[in-house]
Amino acid sequence: MSDTPGTSAGTGAEDYEHPISHEDFRQLGYKMIDAIVDYRSNIEKHPVRSEVAPGYLAEKLPESAPTQPEGLDAILSDVQTHIMPGITHWQHPSFFSWYPANSSYPALLGDMLSSALGVVGFAWIGSPAATELETVTLDWLARFLRLPNAFLSTGTTGGGGVIQGTASEAALVALLAARARPLDGRDPGADGPRLVAYTTDQAHSCVKKACAVAGIQHLRLLPTSAERGWALDPATLEAAMTADEGHGLMPFFLTTLIGTTSSAAVDPVAELAAVARRHGAWVHVDAAYAGVFACLPDQHDLYFQGLEGVDSFSTNPHKGMLVTFDCSALWVQNSFWLRTALSLEPQFQFAGLRHAAEHLDYKDWQVPLGRRFRALKLWFVLRMYGTERLQAYLRHHLDMAKALAQLVEADPAFDIIATPRFGLVCFAPRGASEEESTALLERVNASGRTFMVHTRLGGRHVWRLAVGGVHTQWRHVEEVWALVQKVVGGGEA
Amino acid sequence: MSDTPGTSAGTGAEDYEHPISHEDFRQLGYKMIDAIVDYRSNIEKHPVRSEVAPGYLAEKLPESAPTQPEGLDAILSDVQTHIMPGITHWQHPSFFSWYPANSSYPALLGDMLSSALGVVGFAWIGSPAATELETVTLDWLARFLRLPNAFLSTGTTGGGGVIQGTASEAALVALLAARARPLDGRDPGADGPRLVAYTTDQAHSCVKKACAVAGIQHLRLLPTSAERGWALDPATLEAAMTADEGHGLMPFFLTTLIGTTSSAAVDPVAELAAVARRHGAWVHVDAAYAGVFACLPDQHDLYFQGLEGVDSFSTNPHKGMLVTFDCSALWVQNSFWLRTALSLEPQFQFAGLRHAAEHLDYKDWQVPLGRRFRALKLWFVLRMYGTERLQAYLRHHLDMAKALAQLVEADPAFDIIATPRFGLVCFAPRGASEEESTALLERVNASGRTFMVHTRLGGRHVWRLAVGGVHTQWRHVEEVWALVQKVVGGGEA
Repeated sequence: MSDTPGTSAGTGAEDYEHPISHEDFRQLGYKMIDAIVDYRSNIEKHPVRSEVAPGYLAEKLPESAPTQPEGLDAILSDVQTHIMPGITHWQHPSFFSWYPANSSYPALLGDMLSSALGVVGFAWIGSPAATELETVTLDWLARFLRLPNAFLSTGTTGGGGVIQGTASEAALVALLAARARPLDGRDPGADGPRLVAYTTDQAHSCVKKACAVAGIQHLRLLPTSAERGWALDPATLEAAMTADEGHGLMPFFLTTLIGTTSSAAVDPVAELAAVARRHGAWVHVDAAYAGVFACLPDQHDLYFQGLEGVDSFSTNPHKGMLVTFDCSALWVQNSFWLRTALSLEPQFQFAGLRHAAEHLDYKDWQVPLGRRFRALKLWFVLRMYGTERLQAYLRHHLDMAKALAQLVEADPAFDIIATPRFGLVCFAPRGASEEESTALLERVNASGRTFMVHTRLGGRHVWRLAVGGVHTQWRHVEEVWALVQKVVGGGEA
Repeated sequence: MSDTPGTSAGTGAEDYEHPISHEDFRQLGYKMIDAIVDYRSNIEKHPVRSEVAPGYLAEKLPESAPTQPEGLDAILSDVQTHIMPGITHWQHPSFFSWYPANSSYPALLGDMLSSALGVVGFAWIGSPAATELETVTLDWLARFLRLPNAFLSTGTTGGGGVIQGTASEAALVALLAARARPLDGRDPGADGPRLVAYTTDQAHSCVKKACAVAGIQHLRLLPTSAERGWALDPATLEAAMTADEGHGLMPFFLTTLIGTTSSAAVDPVAELAAVARRHGAWVHVDAAYAGVFACLPDQHDLYFQGLEGVDSFSTNPHKGMLVTFDCSALWVQNSFWLRTALSLEPQFQFAGLRHAAEHLDYKDWQVPLGRRFRALKLWFVLRMYGTERLQAYLRHHLDMAKALAQLVEADPAFDIIATPRFGLVCFAPRGASEEESTALLERVNASGRTFMVHTRLGGRHVWRLAVGGVHTQWRHVEEVWALVQKVVGGGEA
């Protein structure tokens, strides 16, 4: 086909024929479904961590895109030959790195529908259903996690939820809302208050990045300690805020943590929020990984008290709750400052709560303009699992982590380094030097039979085993534990 | 199922059984494929614009998520009954609003694979293939669009491409890179230079939002005029930068536009870049909509000259080039300042180009940490269409817009308001007042047979007809034109 098809100016252009018709797609779609079932049901045949060398792919692929259409078979063949070796298999049941990003079939079905609809719900009229289903499903999720009523769209404070891509974006927009409050219409930084943000030395790097992006110069990474379980002491926060105020700075933003990246530590949120509120700061809770465990009554009682006193709360259903990445939930008790920070329409910006109730444009709750219809995958997961199965699923991971922690504790060759919480167990080979510990973990990972990453706690090289894969059963945890014992005992992986 | 399944501490937890097995999914996946084919092949039966009232959905859905699993049939039935009325059908062939966000079957197949793999390629090791295929496909796309070699990963300046979610995020990270350059390691704003950004009054709101997010206080929205086709006069930029420097400000960032949001206007990029470079400012080209047309030789010659002199260039394959939202491509001639602004690892931050070549972590090229494997859908589109079909597809839209413009021009009841470019035609009913024009456009849209939005040019209410839907053929353009003529002529829609 020529790149300049004939046209008849004034009467119209030639019809364009897609290389794939609706009926072609039906067959190709079935084939892709089969390929997905094949991948997921045979995933254990792959090494967990990719072992390719940097730059492996470019030499295997052509320099330029093809001029003529290629078929799905050719592409799937290249996926097997060239892409799969470069995949680290996050859905492998023996993947225990970072935190999980589990991806489920119901989420996949919801996302297929989202792609097929192809709507961009930046404003309500872009597709009212995309906006309103997001509001509804985040209310569902808030009720499931027993969040305070003020976080629901049906509350009386102008609150509600929104889906961000990642917890990084949730932290950034919370920070921007927090900044809008003391500025109250003034240009940021134009002889305005010298703002200072707070979190702990255990915070996810996204807090530092949010400050860097927003141009916030003062961020305190307050110290934590092993003695307090890597949680922030409210007295430390009080002292820091008071000292900063004494130097003419204005505390404006606290990020407190439920389930830290490193060791799943939990801050005393209620006490910290009380301190921050006294000093006028916005309180954001980053529960990116752990927040979904609030659906379990005992976990809620232990770790999720005092949320009435915080301004924003975020957790990622795309981590432990089966909603394929990306789906990070953010709730605010009042969306006014979020919209003030992020709306560019002055006529709406200061119209207060009424606007939100009439006609909600989620572009004013996020940094980007465009947005996918991500509520569908969350809706599919909540409905196709149902809340009791989701609770059982998360309980299953808790139970496995607890059982693993008991095995580690019973073995004199290992130390448990932090209190096991949620699905995470942090441990280290007893008496091993930094170099030895690093080399042993690499031997475990190089086996291809699992993948864990390390963290650093109190200066020590610590192994993190995060249970939470979509296909993970107890036998996988047992296997990796046997492997770890063998390697640390001097055996071959 | 209880929410506390039995466990045998020390020996393990009960296996968790998903409500949908691999084989269940095969059947449900086929069913979803059928539902997608049914939707897409019958899309013309829907009114283009949703006509629901704000708040329509909440009352139709339960207050809480179900406790027990529900089947796909029940969900798809709710989609038909409750979701479809709230969809504005962006894939409808008579959707001519904003700019297109066309979604194709090859992209859908690629995205299904991405969801099934469920990898998070924030760092290279998160899945080397996710990072490296992105580099390769953005090189493919850069060659297809005939971008200067410096934007390719294979160039000698440390450049390359990255997929952002949206052009807003591309503009934001370009601005952050631009800010890092004059700061050169200093804290932003700490007695540093007083930075000033520039763009035109035709720029997308994302430039203003990027400045708001980053806390940049000085943004000049330089005036354009009908006489210069809503493009920025280099003399205007020169005068503004000189004046600002005279007041002790430092020009640091220019966003120049190829294909504005309002009227597809094109700035004289080469001349503007020369001015900006003389004043030390980073030059970013926002070609969100129009950039993909650079693959057509005549369009390239007309509108895409002088890109050697710009620092960053972005365009959205998710608009006109069939890669389902979200896929916004950003290229830089040197990634050093991007990584300086966005990496939080000081040990890598100033290591310069060597690091990039060895081991690329895209988290350092974007605001969020996590990221989907979006290169797959781009790869599928480039291969399953091939470059000649993609050129023919874009040519088809150009031809239809050109033919439509001729029809509008020939009709004395209408004025063409801006030079038609790419797929966009801007026109208005001749002699109509603001109120009349608004009411007439609403009558056209309320018919359900099309959807257009308006813009404002030189104070006038202008109708925008953006040709570019995945299923749009000439008959759809003819039909909407007949409808417009009829309504403006006083007939019923």
